[in-house]
Amino acid sequence: MGRIDLNSDLGENVPDRIVGDDEAMLDLVTSANVSCGFHAGSPEGIRATLAAAVAKGVTIGAHPGYRDYEGFGRLAMDVDSATLQAQVEYQLGALIAMAMAVGGRVVYVKPHGALYNTIARDERQARAVVAAVRAVDPSLVLLGLAGGVVLDVAEAAGLATAAEAFADRAYTPTGELVSRTQPGSVLHDADLVARRMLRLATEGVVEAIDGATVAVRADSICVHGDSDGAIAMAAATRTLLSAEGVEIAPFAGVSA
Amino acid sequence: MGRIDLNSDLGENVPDRIVGDDEAMLDLVTSANVSCGFHAGSPEGIRATLAAAVAKGVTIGAHPGYRDYEGFGRLAMDVDSATLQAQVEYQLGALIAMAMAVGGRVVYVKPHGALYNTIARDERQARAVVAAVRAVDPSLVLLGLAGGVVLDVAEAAGLATAAEAFADRAYTPTGELVSRTQPGSVLHDADLVARRMLRLATEGVVEAIDGATVAVRADSICVHGDSDGAIAMAAATRTLLSAEGVEIAPFAGVSA
Amino acid sequence: MGRIDLNSDLGENVPDRIVGDDEAMLDLVTSANVSCGFHAGSPEGIRATLAAAVAKGVTIGAHPGYRDYEGFGRLAMDVDSATLQAQVEYQLGALIAMAMAVGGRVVYVKPHGALYNTIARDERQARAVVAAVRAVDPSLVLLGLAGGVVLDVAEAAGLATAAEAFADRAYTPTGELVSRTQPGSVLHDADLVARRMLRLATEGVVEAIDGATVAVRADSICVHGDSDGAIAMAAATRTLLSAEGVEIAPFAGVSA
Amino acid sequence: MGRIDLNSDLGENVPDRIVGDDEAMLDLVTSANVSCGFHAGSPEGIRATLAAAVAKGVTIGAHPGYRDYEGFGRLAMDVDSATLQAQVEYQLGALIAMAMAVGGRVVYVKPHGALYNTIARDERQARAVVAAVRAVDPSLVLLGLAGGVVLDVAEAAGLATAAEAFADRAYTPTGELVSRTQPGSVLHDADLVARRMLRLATEGVVEAIDGATVAVRADSICVHGDSDGAIAMAAATRTLLSAEGVEIAPFAGVSA
Repeated sequence: MGRIDLNSDLGENVPDRIVGDDEAMLDLVTSANVSCGFHAGSPEGIRATLAAAVAKGVTIGAHPGYRDYEGFGRLAMDVDSATLQAQVEYQLGALIAMAMAVGGRVVYVKPHGALYNTIARDERQARAVVAAVRAVDPSLVLLGLAGGVVLDVAEAAGLATAAEAFADRAYTPTGELVSRTQPGSVLHDADLVARRMLRLATEGVVEAIDGATVAVRADSICVHGDSDGAIAMAAATRTLLSAEGVEIAPFAGVSA
Repeated sequence: MGRIDLNSDLGENVPDRIVGDDEAMLDLVTSANVSCGFHAGSPEGIRATLAAAVAKGVTIGAHPGYRDYEGFGRLAMDVDSATLQAQVEYQLGALIAMAMAVGGRVVYVKPHGALYNTIARDERQARAVVAAVRAVDPSLVLLGLAGGVVLDVAEAAGLATAAEAFADRAYTPTGELVSRTQPGSVLHDADLVARRMLRLATEGVVEAIDGATVAVRADSICVHGDSDGAIAMAAATRTLLSAEGVEIAPFAGVSA
Repeated sequence: MGRIDLNSDLGENVPDRIVGDDEAMLDLVTSANVSCGFHAGSPEGIRATLAAAVAKGVTIGAHPGYRDYEGFGRLAMDVDSATLQAQVEYQLGALIAMAMAVGGRVVYVKPHGALYNTIARDERQARAVVAAVRAVDPSLVLLGLAGGVVLDVAEAAGLATAAEAFADRAYTPTGELVSRTQPGSVLHDADLVARRMLRLATEGVVEAIDGATVAVRADSICVHGDSDGAIAMAAATRTLLSAEGVEIAPFAGVSA
Repeated sequence: MGRIDLNSDLGENVPDRIVGDDEAMLDLVTSANVSCGFHAGSPEGIRATLAAAVAKGVTIGAHPGYRDYEGFGRLAMDVDSATLQAQVEYQLGALIAMAMAVGGRVVYVKPHGALYNTIARDERQARAVVAAVRAVDPSLVLLGLAGGVVLDVAEAAGLATAAEAFADRAYTPTGELVSRTQPGSVLHDADLVARRMLRLATEGVVEAIDGATVAVRADSICVHGDSDGAIAMAAATRTLLSAEGVEIAPFAGVSA
C-alpha cells in the first residue's frame, strides 16, 4: 500500500521563544530537518533537538539557510557562489559535529526557506549548494522540492536525491506550489490534509487548486513545524496513513 | 638548538575590514589559529584563509570564541556549560568541514580572546570546552596558556595539549602575563621581541617585567595577528630564531 | 478602590517565529514594553507593534536588553559601563524614532531579561542605564523591580520611577521574587493569579511562598507575554480587577 | 574660487578590528558619515566617533546600511519596502540619540554600500529610504550619488539633497562611476586624485576614463575611509584645494 516519509523543520527555538514543540513532532515524523543556526535556533537548542531525535530514532537532516536570523531565512539573497558554498559547508559541518556529539549522524540535507525556494529554480545557487554538500560529505542525500532544478543539479553531480511534497499547501495544475500570497494556498483542515496525503502516498497524485488531478513525485511529506496546528496536522496524517496501511518510514538511512 | 612553533590568529577579516594580512602571516608562521566565525570573519573569508594555509603547508587549528562578533570576542561571558559546549562543538564542526572542503584538516584547538583567558583559570568553563573537543574529535590537541587550568583539565580528560607563550607580552615573576591594563604589558620593539623569543626557545625562560628570570613552558609562540607591526614582529622573530639554529616547526601534525 | 497599570513585553516576534500575540495582548494591557531589537524582534515587526499600540491607545515603553539575540537576552553580561550606556542609548533612540514615525512616543523605559535583573542589584550597571536614559530623554520614566537598586539610582539622578510586580511569580517573605530555578516560583493558574493581583492592587500586599503576607510597591503589574497562557492570565486579571472596581490605567502618560 | 565639502565613512571599527583611523580623518574632513551599526561598528565605538566629531566641529551624517554586518553591507538585498523603511528609521533614531548624548546632532543621511548603490537606480527602495528620513526628521539632508534616482525621489518628497563625487574613482564619459570590477576604476595616486578634485571643485568637471571631460555635480567629495592610503589621499586633496583657494566647508549645517 505504499510507503512514505514524514519530515518537519525543527531546532528553531531559542529560550522563551518557542516556535514549535520539537518533542511532540519527533513522535510523529520519521525525518527531522534540523536548523543549522543561520536562520533560527542556537547551538544548545539545536543540540537538544538532535539528542531527542537520536533518542526517538528519527533520521536527521541538516536544514541550512541564508544568513538571515532576524528574518527567519525568508529573505531571498543574491549571494555569490563562493560565499554561498562556504556558508552551506559551515552550517553542515556545525550540525554534523553536534549530531556526532550526541551519538547520531546527519543523513540528508534540506535547505530552508528562501534558499530552498531559490535553488528550486536558480541553477547558479543550486550548484553552489550542491558543491558544498559534495565537499563536506558526498553520501548526504539532497531533499528538495519535487520538480526543482536543484534535484537535477544534484543528480548530475552524483548526489542521491529525494523529492518532497507539502502537506498544508495547494498545488497548481502543473504540480507547482500555489504561491503563499494567493488565497487558498495554505490548507488548515487537518482531516482534509490527511486525506490528500493518503492519496499522494497511495496514488502519487494530488488534487490541484482548480480540481484537476496532478502527479507529484514525493519520497517525503513536509508537515510544517511552525504554523498553528502543525502537530494536529501531522498527527492526523500519520494516523490516517498508518490506518490505511501506508508504511511511514525514513526516505534515507537512520541516524543512530 | 631547540625547536618551536610560531602561531597566529587568522581568518578574522571581512570584506573592506582588513584586520590582518593573512597571506603574509602564513609565510611566517607554522600554525594558523583560524577563526570559527563567532568572534570575527565570515565563512567565505575563513575558507580562503584555510585554502591559503593548505597551499603553504601551515598547520591548521580551530580558534573558537564566545558569541560576541561586535566585541571581537573580548567580552567575558558566564555562559552555562551546556551552552558553551554546544557553541564550541558548533564552531569546531564548521571549521573542520571547511578545512576538509579545501583539502586540509584541523589538527588543534586554541580558544580565542575572553574565552581563552577564562578557561586559563575557570575550571567549569574549561571542562565545557574540553568536553566539546572530546565529543567532536579526541585527537585534536588543545593549545592554551602555559600554566593555565584548561591544560590540566584537558590532560586529565585524555587530550594532548600544548602550551604557548606570547611574543609581544610582558610576564610577571611568576610566569603569568602582565595584564593589558598595566603599563609595559605589550611590547612593540620587534628586535627586542625576537631576542626574548630566542631565549625562550633555547633556554626556556623569559625576563619578567621586574628583571627576574622566569621559566615558561612553550611549545608554541603566538605572534599576534591583529596589532600594528605584527608582520614585522613575526618576521624578526622567525629570522633571528632560524639564524640561531632553532627549528621552526609545527607543534602538532601537518594539516594536508 | 485603587488603580493599577498592566504591562507586557511585546514586539518580540520575527516572521514565522511567533512568541506572543501582540494584538490580543494590546487589548488587555495599558502599557507596552516594546523590544528595541537587541534581544528579540526586528525593526518592521517592532514598528507594527508600535503602530498597533498607538491605534489602541496603549502607552509605549522601551524594552532594551543586552546584545544577546540568540539567547533572548537571558545571559547576564559584565559589560563595561561605557559600552552598556551606548547600547541603551542606541536602543532607546531606535525605538523613539520608530514610535514617532507611527505617530506615537516613548514614555518610559523597562529594561529586559538579564539586564533587568542585573540592574536590580548591580549599582554600576544601573548607573550606566540611568545615564543613558538621562542623556537621551530625561522625561522618560524608569520602570523597574519593586525594591531594586536601579530605582534608587534613577531617583537620585532625577528620573521619575515606577515599580512593578509580576503576576505569575511567587514572592519571598521579604518581597523578592522566588528564583525561577525553585519549585513553585512560576504560577500557572489564571484565577489564582487574578486574585493575588486584586489583593496587591487593593491592599498593597501579596501572599509569600511561605504563606506570610508581604507588602509590595506596585505601580504596574507585568503580565508575561511569552509564557503559555499569558493572554488568559492577563484577561482573567483585567476582568477581575475591573469587576472589583480597580481602575486599570497607565502609570505614565499616554503615547499618542 | 569655489567651495566644497569633504566627507568620509567613519565609526566602522570594533575592538581590535581597526578599519580606519577616525581621529586622523576627522582632522581632514568637514562631514562625517557615521555608521549606524547595521553594516559595521558598535554603539560604544560609534559614540566615541560622534564625540570626536563634535569636539573637532565636523558635521555629522547618519550612514545606514543593509542588515549585513558580516559582509560589511556589500550584499545587495531585495528587502521589501516596509522592512527597509523600518530598518532605516531604526538606524537613524539610534544615531540621533547617541549624537544628542554627546552634545551633537545628525544633520544629513548618506546610505552605505549596497544600499547606496541600489537607491541610486531602484526607485522602490529609494522611496522607502526617503519615507524613513521624512518620518524621522524631514530637516535631514539626503546625500547621494550625483545623478542618482534617490536625489530625485528625495526632492519630490520635499527633502533637501546634496550630491557627491568620489575622490578615488574613475568616471565614465556619461558621468557615472566605472564599476569596481573594471580595470582602472579605483585610483591610488594621491596627487592625481587631488588634482582631479581641484578641477571638480573649481570647474565642475572630471576627466573621464576615456579622456573626455564630463560635468559632475558635487556638493561634497567622498574620501574613502577604508581603503589603503585613505588618510594620505584626504590630506593631499585638502592641502591642494586649500592652497588653491577653494573653501573646504560642510555642505549642510554644523552639528554642535
